[in-house]
Amino acid sequence: MRLYIGLLHYPVYNKNYQKIASAITTTDLHDLARLARTYGIKKFFVINPLKDQHKLAERILSHWTVGYGAKYNQHRKEAFGLVAIASTLEETIEEIEGIEGEKPLLLATDARKQDARSITYTEAKDILDDERVVMLIFGTAWGLDKETIDHADYILDPIMGRTDYNHLSVRTAAAIILDRLAGR
Amino acid sequence: MRLYIGLLHYPVYNKNYQKIASAITTTDLHDLARLARTYGIKKFFVINPLKDQHKLAERILSHWTVGYGAKYNQHRKEAFGLVAIASTLEETIEEIEGIEGEKPLLLATDARKQDARSITYTEAKDILDDERVVMLIFGTAWGLDKETIDHADYILDPIMGRTDYNHLSVRTAAAIILDRLAGR
Repeated sequence: MRLYIGLLHYPVYNKNYQKIASAITTTDLHDLARLARTYGIKKFFVINPLKDQHKLAERILSHWTVGYGAKYNQHRKEAFGLVAIASTLEETIEEIEGIEGEKPLLLATDARKQDARSITYTEAKDILDDERVVMLIFGTAWGLDKETIDHADYILDPIMGRTDYNHLSVRTAAAIILDRLAGR
Repeated sequence: MRLYIGLLHYPVYNKNYQKIASAITTTDLHDLARLARTYGIKKFFVINPLKDQHKLAERILSHWTVGYGAKYNQHRKEAFGLVAIASTLEETIEEIEGIEGEKPLLLATDARKQDARSITYTEAKDILDDERVVMLIFGTAWGLDKETIDHADYILDPIMGRTDYNHLSVRTAAAIILDRLAGR
């Protein structure tokens, strides 16, 4: 499996569907890094254009990979070893292309069902089983902006639980999606 | 489906496998409440014996169910409507018995595979599909103490992702478990 994940902080929507840059949430980094390690993800990109946000992310990363945290919790060190910080989605695509020698398929996630280019979990799993390089993109705040959705090759179907309620945190949504796509 | 969930803060293990009472994490309450609403859970019990921790949980709850948060975010209000605060596991069992007219089956979760009374996801799903009353228990910190494991009717198999790494947050583990047991 050649799966990469990205957590996008810009461009995303705020509550009123205005385009914003969101702040990095420490818990997201911890939870997604551990998920990445659990599900054999090749790299987890934290994507944020703001320089002060990079500094915050770098401080967290260095605490858990080379600082006191690395000694305190070896499991956390392993997980944070998969994290990379980037400014834009384009930059991560180039980095993946450099590693894999081919452009990744962009697979966006959205809590709203998309008409065009939507894809089921079974279809997405087949693409991964075919050893295609895939970049799975999660949006923070109120989700990925139309610009990113339009740019994606496919949009994964929303998670339907057991009710019509569809307002999960990005951490728990990412957990469910990765278990469905990459779980054995 | 008659599924209840509980997030236990005592007795749980710390890093050195000593029995402790853990502190309530706000993010856990938000994430698990939203998961509960998504997966048709009847009630989500936050179980902590400490009175000051009850006050904290009550403050969060009241902000989102009757305070400013309830106006600000209707979805969050709906989710927090499923949350109840309790002091002990025994107390929640009595409450469930009062609602359902029968004792719930206790289904514990553990990141370590248990020899006795372990149960697969398929077996647990069958029990739920049979309309049995089930209380699914998640442990905070380093997981449920032996006392609770011994007391449970069944222990759900650990989540195996795609690697041998098995150190997820309780939020993301709960997401995966609920999707496997209660997802359609």
